[in-house]
Amino acid sequence: METNPCNKLINGGSSIPSKVSRKTNQENTIVNIKGVQAGGSEIIIIAGPCAVESREQLFETARSVKSDGANILRGGAFKPRTSPYNFQGLGEDGLKLLGIIREETGLPIVTEVMDTRQFEMVASYADMIQIGSRNMQNYPLLKEAGMCRKPVLLKRGMMATVEEFLLAAEYILSQGNDQVILCERGIRTFETSTRNTLDLSAVPMLKRLSHLPVIVDPSHGTGLRWMVPAMAKAAIAAGADGLIMEVHYKPEEAICDGYQSLDLNEFGQLMADLKKIAIAVGREISLTKPSHV
Amino acid sequence: METNPCNKLINGGSSIPSKVSRKTNQENTIVNIKGVQAGGSEIIIIAGPCAVESREQLFETARSVKSDGANILRGGAFKPRTSPYNFQGLGEDGLKLLGIIREETGLPIVTEVMDTRQFEMVASYADMIQIGSRNMQNYPLLKEAGMCRKPVLLKRGMMATVEEFLLAAEYILSQGNDQVILCERGIRTFETSTRNTLDLSAVPMLKRLSHLPVIVDPSHGTGLRWMVPAMAKAAIAAGADGLIMEVHYKPEEAICDGYQSLDLNEFGQLMADLKKIAIAVGREISLTKPSHV
Amino acid sequence: METNPCNKLINGGSSIPSKVSRKTNQENTIVNIKGVQAGGSEIIIIAGPCAVESREQLFETARSVKSDGANILRGGAFKPRTSPYNFQGLGEDGLKLLGIIREETGLPIVTEVMDTRQFEMVASYADMIQIGSRNMQNYPLLKEAGMCRKPVLLKRGMMATVEEFLLAAEYILSQGNDQVILCERGIRTFETSTRNTLDLSAVPMLKRLSHLPVIVDPSHGTGLRWMVPAMAKAAIAAGADGLIMEVHYKPEEAICDGYQSLDLNEFGQLMADLKKIAIAVGREISLTKPSHV
Amino acid sequence: METNPCNKLINGGSSIPSKVSRKTNQENTIVNIKGVQAGGSEIIIIAGPCAVESREQLFETARSVKSDGANILRGGAFKPRTSPYNFQGLGEDGLKLLGIIREETGLPIVTEVMDTRQFEMVASYADMIQIGSRNMQNYPLLKEAGMCRKPVLLKRGMMATVEEFLLAAEYILSQGNDQVILCERGIRTFETSTRNTLDLSAVPMLKRLSHLPVIVDPSHGTGLRWMVPAMAKAAIAAGADGLIMEVHYKPEEAICDGYQSLDLNEFGQLMADLKKIAIAVGREISLTKPSHV
Repeated sequence: METNPCNKLINGGSSIPSKVSRKTNQENTIVNIKGVQAGGSEIIIIAGPCAVESREQLFETARSVKSDGANILRGGAFKPRTSPYNFQGLGEDGLKLLGIIREETGLPIVTEVMDTRQFEMVASYADMIQIGSRNMQNYPLLKEAGMCRKPVLLKRGMMATVEEFLLAAEYILSQGNDQVILCERGIRTFETSTRNTLDLSAVPMLKRLSHLPVIVDPSHGTGLRWMVPAMAKAAIAAGADGLIMEVHYKPEEAICDGYQSLDLNEFGQLMADLKKIAIAVGREISLTKPSHV
Repeated sequence: METNPCNKLINGGSSIPSKVSRKTNQENTIVNIKGVQAGGSEIIIIAGPCAVESREQLFETARSVKSDGANILRGGAFKPRTSPYNFQGLGEDGLKLLGIIREETGLPIVTEVMDTRQFEMVASYADMIQIGSRNMQNYPLLKEAGMCRKPVLLKRGMMATVEEFLLAAEYILSQGNDQVILCERGIRTFETSTRNTLDLSAVPMLKRLSHLPVIVDPSHGTGLRWMVPAMAKAAIAAGADGLIMEVHYKPEEAICDGYQSLDLNEFGQLMADLKKIAIAVGREISLTKPSHV
Repeated sequence: METNPCNKLINGGSSIPSKVSRKTNQENTIVNIKGVQAGGSEIIIIAGPCAVESREQLFETARSVKSDGANILRGGAFKPRTSPYNFQGLGEDGLKLLGIIREETGLPIVTEVMDTRQFEMVASYADMIQIGSRNMQNYPLLKEAGMCRKPVLLKRGMMATVEEFLLAAEYILSQGNDQVILCERGIRTFETSTRNTLDLSAVPMLKRLSHLPVIVDPSHGTGLRWMVPAMAKAAIAAGADGLIMEVHYKPEEAICDGYQSLDLNEFGQLMADLKKIAIAVGREISLTKPSHV
Repeated sequence: METNPCNKLINGGSSIPSKVSRKTNQENTIVNIKGVQAGGSEIIIIAGPCAVESREQLFETARSVKSDGANILRGGAFKPRTSPYNFQGLGEDGLKLLGIIREETGLPIVTEVMDTRQFEMVASYADMIQIGSRNMQNYPLLKEAGMCRKPVLLKRGMMATVEEFLLAAEYILSQGNDQVILCERGIRTFETSTRNTLDLSAVPMLKRLSHLPVIVDPSHGTGLRWMVPAMAKAAIAAGADGLIMEVHYKPEEAICDGYQSLDLNEFGQLMADLKKIAIAVGREISLTKPSHV
């Protein structure tokens, strides 16, 4: 049989760092976000707006996604924007709104941190810290995340190989925090009909190489609202442990990413479809409830 | 709302050629391969070895995949190999073996043509003509396929955009043949842990832009035997009309692509799993039988 | 010292096929196109229109580039176009025009062949056969080129690695023809501000791995007329043995590729600049004359 | 004439942010690094080790590159390493060594900053602040650089488009600091024979779109010591305003990047060759002296 160069990563092993490796820990790591468990038999669903824009926008969206079965709320307060002249987020005011709606709905909160100087402040509001694609190799930030006692959602860089992605996670684990969820969110390729190319093969690859939970972001992965349901279903079929999706109560009025955000009805319909796929692959959606409720 | 650059292809339309466009033909085109229908509610399953190597190899593989529900047999007689010193296929002897096993099993045959001078000869054996990735922009070959009265399986070039892929199909339709199946088989990116990056978002994109059936090749798309099942399931969940997969009765002895070929048991297990996914998305697998039997 | 994964190709050697390898032949191969020698100390300059459009267009362009020091004339008669509805070339009428202007100017002709069935006919007119990017892995065509007794200009596929490029050349050499010039013409990447990304590092890489001459096509490599001079100079500084450039007497009226074609004055000015660069790297431009004159 | 999609960036203009744009400022911006002027007729040469490893290593390398005509010294004290288990740099001890050798040689110092919390400290030692590829979209860091009164060397992200690169620079200029040098250092593509693909076409593109100086890093751009000279010459021929290169007194003993570092003799030889290229394109190397001496 011919040799397969692709098996280097699988067989070689030496390049896969130790703490994230399945060779070190054969059991799946379960990441616990205030009672929501990622990495077990249940599929977790993280939903919410790209950015926190206003009390009404956040609260209406949050209540709706909760009633449809989402178990974690997303929302950005500090936004990494390609242009300095775009909306940069509400900052701490946004975090406060997230805190209020968490009290009401019981949904744990995930939100992004971009600056080591703000790490402690963001962590004081968030139930899970997100490190975004552009910061996947921001090593001081990764080290802060490693010293933090909160779960971390680490998004793959748009130019990062699977190996580099695992090495970035290793920065966090090497500091003592193993509560890390890996998130595939699309890579940059020559294809321009989608915003990024969602690399679903990264899901079985990461699951094989590492014991950490793996989720998928079909919103950024495609950049196309109408395509999110197809790719969300495909992600679950490929073995993902969950999804993170942008949902907005009025996508056409969103300040950012409206073109890739589901509206409330679309999200509800998708949840129904996802449950069928989950069953077909022997998984479940939305049986656990956040501990607060 | 911000404008979405990705919607250019969807909205603009002008760049999508006319005959392949869904604007020209809103109904799905059904491609009929000797009674097997692609593009309708049923999922088609094309299986078989990368290359025809021997009577025993081909026949044992064909009988097994048929009994597990495959409805078309694949097998290469003329192989496009990166090195001139690799096995180049059995040529017409391979085609003859394909003809014999078709008689026995009733499975229609799909096989690749590489040279305009051999088009007529290959077409005299094949029930569906395959044009491979490396020849996606071989325009004389596409024109021959357009003048042929057999269905054509057109594989996406490994660095072709969705738009270029549709323009290649347009070469065939422009000559009068609309019996074309589009096949996503992985694109080339910076990621090297898989042989190619399977671009499953191309499935909903192509289905939206065109009325032609779309299938997926998870064998070449991943280059990893163990990953084929996960990506086959994801492809169906994403809306593919079928799959083409490499199956070999003894993968470890295969002359080519053994590392990405399922063995007979793995294929049987996968077929059972695929039926569950098909049902979850409202499709069926293996209800029609080839007309011959 | 850390190991360098990039040196695999250089050191490993096993993957570099034998006939094209510098290990097989340490001396530079000199390709002789009717007296014009590529691969020695002189830089060769191939210039002319993308496509032969008319007698006037071809002849005026040819006379002008000759007077400015070009030593080979390019011009397409059979054009590989992404859309079936674009101009496909004048066919044999275009070849006849090329033959006439060769007689007048003494410039050898290079033109593309796309179909094995037309190989003999095209070769009867051309002094050098071009195999284009889209056909770099059209193996039947490469084998024809290998059995031909004319020099071959092989363009790198837009998705081909250096290794695959050399393996494609090996198909030609393996049939007995070592008169092959390799041409870097840009690869496809995520960057869209240029038509392709001109990979000038392929020049020193190919020169180190192989004994064949290496030239560069800055017209297709950039897709931008105003950028051609900068990249032409850079190519010579990087060690290229020559350039192939699109020049048109009226670029704004060109049927194809006008936006990347130099006009006659721009070409003349560039030639003057290139001579300075050639001297700075110890090379020469335009000292030999075609044998005909 | 066909429309050229590549001209969108050139013609459209709207996507190019205002402060970095040549439309805003038609004159070249001259960046002044303690008397060394980038962006004028002179080519600047930045040389030194990847990382500061020891007093001997740094001082011997610095003295040698200065005697060969380098006008700025590079050396990393805080190193962004893909693995947490690799050498992370000497930290402030490294900065102190850089300060000592600056006093001796008069060479201005450029060194990288990775963390907003360390910005002030690093800036107190450096004459020019480097923001590395992995941090090109680290917006808090860019804003710090914009509020700083030191010149900034901004390296292109390995998967950043030209447009995103300019938008990152705009973050700095928007805070009031226009002393920014842009550095092309290779992008990530499918090609693996080089560490990155050095995109020299970015040089004329950036020079046309922006008034900021543009330099090239052939060391990271190729990852191959033997290829650095060829690409350094090509960069100058393409119009670059300078080069940054890794030089080490004992490359085979370097802790990082030894395989892409020139030794002292190679650097001296290259400087002699670069002067010839500079003259051929109407530029000069090493006429100005740092103001200190």
